[in-house]
Amino acid sequence: MPADFAARRSALRQSLIARELDSLLVTDLLNIRYLTGFTGSNAALIVGSDDSSKDESRTVVCTDGRYLSQVAEQVPDLRAVIDRSSAAHLLASEYAPRDAAIGFESHVVTVDQHRGWSEANASLDLVCSPGLVEELRMVKDEYEIGLLREACRAADDAFAVLVERGSVRPGRTELAVARELESLMVEHGADGISFETIVATGANSAVPHHRPTSAILESGDFVKFDFGALVGGYHSDMTRTVVIGSPADWQRDVYELVLRAQAAGRNALVPGVSTASVDAAARSVIEEAGHGELFLHGLGHGVGLEIHEAPGIARTSTGTLQCGAAVTVEPGVYFSGRGGVRIEDTLIVRPGGPELLTMTSKQLTLV
Amino acid sequence: MPADFAARRSALRQSLIARELDSLLVTDLLNIRYLTGFTGSNAALIVGSDDSSKDESRTVVCTDGRYLSQVAEQVPDLRAVIDRSSAAHLLASEYAPRDAAIGFESHVVTVDQHRGWSEANASLDLVCSPGLVEELRMVKDEYEIGLLREACRAADDAFAVLVERGSVRPGRTELAVARELESLMVEHGADGISFETIVATGANSAVPHHRPTSAILESGDFVKFDFGALVGGYHSDMTRTVVIGSPADWQRDVYELVLRAQAAGRNALVPGVSTASVDAAARSVIEEAGHGELFLHGLGHGVGLEIHEAPGIARTSTGTLQCGAAVTVEPGVYFSGRGGVRIEDTLIVRPGGPELLTMTSKQLTLV
Repeated sequence: MPADFAARRSALRQSLIARELDSLLVTDLLNIRYLTGFTGSNAALIVGSDDSSKDESRTVVCTDGRYLSQVAEQVPDLRAVIDRSSAAHLLASEYAPRDAAIGFESHVVTVDQHRGWSEANASLDLVCSPGLVEELRMVKDEYEIGLLREACRAADDAFAVLVERGSVRPGRTELAVARELESLMVEHGADGISFETIVATGANSAVPHHRPTSAILESGDFVKFDFGALVGGYHSDMTRTVVIGSPADWQRDVYELVLRAQAAGRNALVPGVSTASVDAAARSVIEEAGHGELFLHGLGHGVGLEIHEAPGIARTSTGTLQCGAAVTVEPGVYFSGRGGVRIEDTLIVRPGGPELLTMTSKQLTLV
Repeated sequence: MPADFAARRSALRQSLIARELDSLLVTDLLNIRYLTGFTGSNAALIVGSDDSSKDESRTVVCTDGRYLSQVAEQVPDLRAVIDRSSAAHLLASEYAPRDAAIGFESHVVTVDQHRGWSEANASLDLVCSPGLVEELRMVKDEYEIGLLREACRAADDAFAVLVERGSVRPGRTELAVARELESLMVEHGADGISFETIVATGANSAVPHHRPTSAILESGDFVKFDFGALVGGYHSDMTRTVVIGSPADWQRDVYELVLRAQAAGRNALVPGVSTASVDAAARSVIEEAGHGELFLHGLGHGVGLEIHEAPGIARTSTGTLQCGAAVTVEPGVYFSGRGGVRIEDTLIVRPGGPELLTMTSKQLTLV
């Protein structure tokens, strides 16, 4: 199934009409990719609100000469204008009618860009319109879910090989294991890595966002892996924590606590639920065990074209989860100086309960 | 030799005084890292223009609770305030005096951020002050040059091993060779890679910024490598093009042409020279050979905390090169559908001629 970019633009037009905007100038490159499929490094897009999927004559993409053939190939269904100044060029063209309300992405456009546009086009009515495309991006279509599924599978397969061939063993460094896992993801179909892989051993596992070092894995260590694969621009995100050798009682206890909290968070993922209550479902398990203050971060976040995107799932989050949202659930408990556990899955919110995309076992010990 | 962050802040103060600014609000994270050494992901910094290296009581950094110990460790010489809203918090504090001209980085601050600050602090006089720190960053101090040297050395060493162990051979894919080179850079001391490695074989070598694919290296192919290592936040950048086996006459010709152009560009790197004339020195060699239209990009760019930073070295560049600038020189000639050559070094502009940081041989064939 190919991506239906025209359907995404139609959805955006509903949002523009509701806000009484004549059109939207899109300059965020990921939002342009989402709406058109174009992946070049310089582009602007104007989406006319009174266009339709049958007539997109007021919707146009602009990029520079380097991307002449690429834009024709990736965006065959829209008019493309070639000009290096992209956004400024479109705003000076007939695609930006004078005296009509033209939205722009004020959450990404800089003060200098906006001033330049305003000075060059005094009669334009530029309206701050933050986050309109990001709002659409919260709900994934089946094409996007397919890519997320492939990204999660590449990460699952890579981790399985890493474990099976005994690469997680005493004497190796965090860095060596991290680089091996990254190479394995590429060998298993990833275009690249989703973010810098975390491998944190022993006391380092208590640092939520530890960067891998030359610290050496030892028997009895907690080893925390937080990693993801990139496929077609979509990011997977998974955390697993294991013990090398035999776990001590305290390790078993904290692991089981985090596992229960994570299950509670996953079970709370139903369409329409408030994000704050999903966080609470997992957090209350940890709080009841007396460790609430050791769960140092929010429960999860949206994933898609960015590794962190809307919706956030935290104590202070507002909003609800819609059907088709792709989110992580990742509680953690961290004993500073000793070790910590985080368990994270990527899931899709579905009517009958969440679809789990990260399939790696959540058992504590390595076989 | 440790980094002298206080000296960098003193240099910035000269720039603030010349612009009659009371202080500068710095929100770009790389600029904050440059001025303080702080590497966290949320921060703001106010630099008071009337402070001195002996009294920095009006200079303060703000970050959130996650970085409480990190900011104390990395920035022992400045007052640190802990507040999640960083910039907004500083602007509402005594560090941002009312009615005084406070510069802000209008080239990175968004319209929404600026509006939020202005609405919350109606009496603040916020002055657009783009690029002040980037201007300082163009000239590297010896600490920075030391890190660039280490980054270039890691890339040199990795490439030497790749060639020596016969990894560039017919039958392998671009992707496999790229990932191996990346792993080797980390094994040789890199903290990570500087940007996504380019390995482009055969006709792909004619695409200036080709991404590695499963294309297979064949005997007689040009293979273009563009890659770099990251050390202490500093980026190396090098391109080498080789032929597998025996080069054809046309390959020898184009290689020697690009090599001559690259030498001409390197020789033009003297303090005070205009960047446009450095581009012209290399470009004219290629133009005289009748291939000017096949040199599709600028000659080079600055490198440092970013892989591409000021100064640009292109036909349309303005400005001059100062002593201590770190730049690349990378002419290329690309025969579409057939193959291309680019040769790139990273160098420091020095009084007696440029210091070459990328030491890998520029011979055409593999031994």
